[in-house]
Amino acid sequence: MTALQLGVIGLGRGFMLTLPALLRHPRIELAGAFDLRPGALARFAEEFGRPGYAEMNTLLADPTIDAVYIATPHEYHATQTIAALRAGKHVLVEKPMATTVADCAAMAAAARDSGRVLVVGPSHGFDEQVRRGAELVASGCFGSVRLVTALNFTDFMFRPRRAEELDSSRGGGVVYSQAAHQIDVVRRLVGQPVASVRAMAANWDATRPSEGAYTALLSFAGGATATLTYSGYAHYDSDELVGWVSELGQPKDPARYGEARRLLATLSAGDEQRAKLARTFGAGGTLPNAAPHHEHFGFILVSCERADLKLLPTGIEVYGDATREFIPIDPPEVPRAAVIEEFADAVLDSRPPIHDGKWGLDTMACCTALLQSSRLAADVDPRPLTIASGE
Amino acid sequence: MTALQLGVIGLGRGFMLTLPALLRHPRIELAGAFDLRPGALARFAEEFGRPGYAEMNTLLADPTIDAVYIATPHEYHATQTIAALRAGKHVLVEKPMATTVADCAAMAAAARDSGRVLVVGPSHGFDEQVRRGAELVASGCFGSVRLVTALNFTDFMFRPRRAEELDSSRGGGVVYSQAAHQIDVVRRLVGQPVASVRAMAANWDATRPSEGAYTALLSFAGGATATLTYSGYAHYDSDELVGWVSELGQPKDPARYGEARRLLATLSAGDEQRAKLARTFGAGGTLPNAAPHHEHFGFILVSCERADLKLLPTGIEVYGDATREFIPIDPPEVPRAAVIEEFADAVLDSRPPIHDGKWGLDTMACCTALLQSSRLAADVDPRPLTIASGE
Ligand SMILES: NC(=O)c1ccc[n+]([C@@H]2O[C@H](COP(=O)([O-])OP(=O)(O)OC[C@H]3O[C@@H](n4cnc5c(N)ncnc54)[C@H](O)[C@@H]3O)[C@@H](O)[C@H]2O)c1
Ligand SMILES: NC(=O)c1ccc[n+]([C@@H]2O[C@H](COP(=O)([O-])OP(=O)(O)OC[C@H]3O[C@@H](n4cnc5c(N)ncnc54)[C@H](O)[C@@H]3O)[C@@H](O)[C@H]2O)c1
Repeated sequence: MTALQLGVIGLGRGFMLTLPALLRHPRIELAGAFDLRPGALARFAEEFGRPGYAEMNTLLADPTIDAVYIATPHEYHATQTIAALRAGKHVLVEKPMATTVADCAAMAAAARDSGRVLVVGPSHGFDEQVRRGAELVASGCFGSVRLVTALNFTDFMFRPRRAEELDSSRGGGVVYSQAAHQIDVVRRLVGQPVASVRAMAANWDATRPSEGAYTALLSFAGGATATLTYSGYAHYDSDELVGWVSELGQPKDPARYGEARRLLATLSAGDEQRAKLARTFGAGGTLPNAAPHHEHFGFILVSCERADLKLLPTGIEVYGDATREFIPIDPPEVPRAAVIEEFADAVLDSRPPIHDGKWGLDTMACCTALLQSSRLAADVDPRPLTIASGE
Repeated sequence: MTALQLGVIGLGRGFMLTLPALLRHPRIELAGAFDLRPGALARFAEEFGRPGYAEMNTLLADPTIDAVYIATPHEYHATQTIAALRAGKHVLVEKPMATTVADCAAMAAAARDSGRVLVVGPSHGFDEQVRRGAELVASGCFGSVRLVTALNFTDFMFRPRRAEELDSSRGGGVVYSQAAHQIDVVRRLVGQPVASVRAMAANWDATRPSEGAYTALLSFAGGATATLTYSGYAHYDSDELVGWVSELGQPKDPARYGEARRLLATLSAGDEQRAKLARTFGAGGTLPNAAPHHEHFGFILVSCERADLKLLPTGIEVYGDATREFIPIDPPEVPRAAVIEEFADAVLDSRPPIHDGKWGLDTMACCTALLQSSRLAADVDPRPLTIASGE
C-alpha cells in the first residue's frame, strides 16, 4: 500500500504542532508545501526533500499529491479548501473550519460534490480522554448524560498575535479559535445535536479588540445541557484543575505566573507580529517537546445519572454511585495522532470520519449562535443556521 | 445596654448550626422557643432556663421577647415571619426566605409596615471570604467585575430528607435550598441588580422527585455575567477545589467517598425521616464541631478586568496582572457569627442590614426566574417579578 502524499498549505505554528504526528504516521508522506514565506518553503524543501511551491495552484495541480493539510489563518480556509477539493485533493483543514457558517456549508458541499474526504482538525475534540469519555457515555452504563461542565481560563488574549487574530470580523477572538475546541469536546462527549445556545461573549480589554471571553449554556436535542466558560483574559490558570498539565500535555510550572502579560508588555505592535512569526516553520519555530501527557482543554466534568466523569490529561476519573475509579490512559506516542489517523483512515480505508464537513459546519453554527445569542440576549438554535446555509 | 431577648421558632438542624453563634454573641440571649416537638421544648427549657411555648402566639405575646429567629421548614417562613412582625418582633428568618415571590413581598411589606428589622439568613452570602471579595470588587482597584464562575457539586439530594424537601411545590429541591445560597453569594460579590436569568433545572432521579441540579446564566444590570452550576446528585465532590474543606468549614476526608448514597440505600422512607429528625435539637442533634475554616459554597472565581479572585475557606487568592497573592482570612471564632452580628447591629444599633426583606425578595425572584426560565426555555427578568408582587 502506497503512502498518502500530503501537501501542506500554511507552514505556521499550527503546522509545527501537527508535524510530529505527520512525521510519525506510517502511511503519510509530506509531498510538498505552499506558504507566502519563501524562507519557509526553502526550508521545507531542504528538510523533507519535496518541493515548496510558489503558487497554491501549482501544488494543487501536482498529480502526485493526494491530499492537503490547510493550516493558514482562518480567513483562507474556505477558499483554499474548496480549491483543493475541486482539484481532487482530500482535505484536512485546521479549526476553526472557516469564519462563517455559509463558508463552512460551501466547504461541506464541495467535499460532497467532489467525493473527497474533508476532515476538520486537529481540535481538542480528538483528545484521547474525550474519545474515551464519549465511549463511556455512549455505552449507557452510567445512564443518560445530563450535564457537562467545561471551564478554561487561559492567557490566550495576551499571547503574541497576528492583527487578524484580534479582529472579530476576520475570525479573531476566542469564539472562533477556542470555542471551536470546547464545542467540539462537549459535542463529542454528549453525542446529541445542539438545539439551543444562550451565551454572553465580551471584550474586556480595549487594547485587544475582540471577544476574549464567553460563557454559554448549550441544550442538546436529547435533553442534556452543557455549560461552557472560557476566559482568554484570565489571571487564574485552570490548568491547576488538571494537575498543572498544559494544553499541549506538558508539565506546567505555576511559578511562571503572568509570563504572557509580562512579555507582551515589552513588545511593540511590530514586535508582537515578529514574535508570532518566530514560532512558525522556517523562522525559528521548533517542534514541540515530546509531551508526557495528552493534550486537553481545561476542566471537563461529564455528569451522567449514575456517575460523573472527570477528564484529565492522564486518564478519566470515574466517580460512580459506590466507588471512584481512575482509568489511566497510556501517554501519547506523539500528540495529535488521532486526527492524522482519522484523516488517513478516511482517505486510505474509506472509513467515514467523525469530524467531517458536516461536523465542522455544526460546530461553526454553534460558534455563530454563541455570538448571536450574546448580541440578541436570547436563545439561538444553531440548526437552522446550517440549513439556511445550504445543508 | 441590655441584651436582645431572642425567641427561636423551629429547633431543627438549621437551629443547631446557628446555635454556636447565638450563644457566643455578647448582646443576644435565648429567651424562649416554639416547636412542634414537646421534647425539644423541654430540652430547651432545661438547657437555657427559658420557656418552651406550646403555641407560637404565646411566644409572640411575651413582651420580654424582642426578636425571633425562624428556622422552621420553608413553607412556614412567610406566615410565621408576618405574624412575628405584626406582634412587634424583629425577625431573622432562615433561607430560603419563603417559597414564592409573593410571600417574600408580603414579608418585606410587613417589615416595612411594622418598622421592625427583617434579616434573611444565614446564607453563604454572609461567608467572610464573600464579604471580603465583595469589598475588593467594590474598591474598583481591579477594574470592573466581568464574570463570576460558581460551581458546587454535592450529595444534597441523597442526605436524609423530610418529604417536603423533595416536593417542589413545597419548596423542595435544590433551587430553593441551594440556589438561594449561590445567588446570594454572586449578588453580594457583583453588587449589581440581576437583569436576566437563563437556566436549566432538572430532576435526574425519579426516586427523589424534585429539581436536584441546575445551571444558570445571570446577567447583571451593570454588565457583569455569572454562571452558576449546582448538582445535588453529584458523585464528584467540588470540595476538592477548595482544599477538601466541607461546606461547614471542616476538613473533609476524600476516603469517605459515596457515604450519603450508601447510607440512604440502607434506609426505608420512615427511617429517612427519623435520620433527618435525629439531627435536630433535643432528638440527638449535636452542636457542630468547632470549624477550623470558614464555611463556603463551592468553587467561586470572580473575574475582574485586572484580577481574578478565587474565594477559599481560608482566604482569597488574588491573581493580578503581574503577581498572585494569597490574602489569608483569620479562622472564624464560631461559624455564622456574621449573620447574628448583622441582625443584632440592625436591631440594637439601627444599622441597616444588607440582607433585609428586599434582599431576600430579590434572591427569591432569581430562584423563581431560574425555574421559570428552565420551563419556558427563555430568558426571564427577575425584576418585574418583585414589582408584580407589590414591591
Ligand atoms: N488545532 C490547534 O491547536 C491549532 C493551533 C495553532 C493554530 N491552529 C490553526 O492554524 C491556523 C493557522 O494559525 P497559526 O497559529 O499556525 O498561524 P501562523 O501565523 O503561525 O501561521 C500561518 C502560516 O500561514 C502562512 N500564510 C498566511 N497566509 C497565507 C495564504 N494566504 N496562503 C498560504 N499561506 C499563508 C503564513 O506565512 C504562516 O506560515 C489557524 O486557523 C489556527 O486556528 C490550530
Ligand atoms: N442556612 C443554612 O445553612 C441552613 C441549614 C439547615 C437548614 N436551614 C433552613 O432551616 C429551615 C429548617 O430546616 P432544617 O434542616 O433545620 O429542618 P429540620 O427538620 O431539621 O427542623 C425543622 C424544625 O422545625 C420544627 N417545625 C416543623 N414545623 C413547624 C411549625 N409549623 N412550627 C414550629 N416548628 C416547626 C420541627 O419540629 C423541627 O424542629 C429550612 O428553611 C432550611 O432551609 C438553613
